Amino acid sequence: MARRDGFDCLALSFRYGQNHGSEIDAAVDVASSADLKRHVIVDIDLRVFGGSALTSEEPVPAFDEHDDSVPITYVPARNTIFLAYALAFAEVSRARHIFVGVNAVDYSGYPDCRPEFVEAFEELANLATKAATEDGLRTEIVAPLINMTKGEIVSLGTSLGVDYSRTVSCYSANQQGEACGECDSCVLRRRGFAEAGLVDPPVGKLR
Amino acid sequence: MARRDGFDCLALSFRYGQNHGSEIDAAVDVASSADLKRHVIVDIDLRVFGGSALTSEEPVPAFDEHDDSVPITYVPARNTIFLAYALAFAEVSRARHIFVGVNAVDYSGYPDCRPEFVEAFEELANLATKAATEDGLRTEIVAPLINMTKGEIVSLGTSLGVDYSRTVSCYSANQQGEACGECDSCVLRRRGFAEAGLVDPPVGKLR
Repeated sequence: MARRDGFDCLALSFRYGQNHGSEIDAAVDVASSADLKRHVIVDIDLRVFGGSALTSEEPVPAFDEHDDSVPITYVPARNTIFLAYALAFAEVSRARHIFVGVNAVDYSGYPDCRPEFVEAFEELANLATKAATEDGLRTEIVAPLINMTKGEIVSLGTSLGVDYSRTVSCYSANQQGEACGECDSCVLRRRGFAEAGLVDPPVGKLR
Repeated sequence: MARRDGFDCLALSFRYGQNHGSEIDAAVDVASSADLKRHVIVDIDLRVFGGSALTSEEPVPAFDEHDDSVPITYVPARNTIFLAYALAFAEVSRARHIFVGVNAVDYSGYPDCRPEFVEAFEELANLATKAATEDGLRTEIVAPLINMTKGEIVSLGTSLGVDYSRTVSCYSANQQGEACGECDSCVLRRRGFAEAGLVDPPVGKLR
């Protein structure tokens, strides 16, 4: 969406101790096929604090339709940390827009995927940097997927030429990027493709 | 100040590619003499983005009385990143207060040391975490030094038993923690001791 809108794009990914590290391989692959100025992968080890199934040895649970609490796959303050790094990267690069793919719909209520979180971060960003306070370079946090359903995201991505066979969504994907088919992320991805009337190509395939 | 006020303390330090890495040795030393539940040192490499004299090969400049712009020792979004990590650590530890030693007085105008930055981060924190949004555990960001002069900080620290000989302030301290005597941080430290009518003990010593 940023490329469609004519932005020069820099990409940022995080190796944060997630068990599904193959999402990084997929990000590198997808980024290499896009016309990006730069793709930086930052190593941060959130395991130093503990506290999430995504970064522990615990198995990721299967999707539960009736549980509307924040899932144990929540990683403490993860998107705050990600956006803080993005802000540093943006300032150094003189970039004024930070695109983030958070999504508040069809989801289990991660607090740091909601519009009010994104707005609060934008407020903070414009008080935090030399670029904003001295050079008048305001930062805008853009979350274009935030209010879309998974079906709408799949449709839009397809129309923009996203090759979903190169993407990984599963929380416990194996090293080849093959999905479990049962975690929240797999179930919601499958529903998204169904809603869009499209077929999820293999890999996102089941293992 | 947190210990004086009866808090159980966890400490957090960052090895972020700073040239003056001896401040970490000093932090470990000071923390070991305090009665802390835990001291975590997080490795983050802000050099991946570049953009600051503190993390580059450029020499740190001498103090300039008449330059009131943000100094080149500013590290992009550094305190935003530090507080984001602290928020994760607090959430995992069920801690409700984050103490941060930023100081907006006697200083060269780092944007992320100002009260409005700290307030905006507290706002963000209480929208960001599961602890805040689901468990009602509000986070308070406490910046007790923010409006104190360096002289007041030195006086108060002395009255609370801080052993300043074990601390490192210099931006280009060598591996033994010895100071250059000429950078912003050295000049402001020296003035602080003078203002407090106290003598800076060696190390903070000149090399």
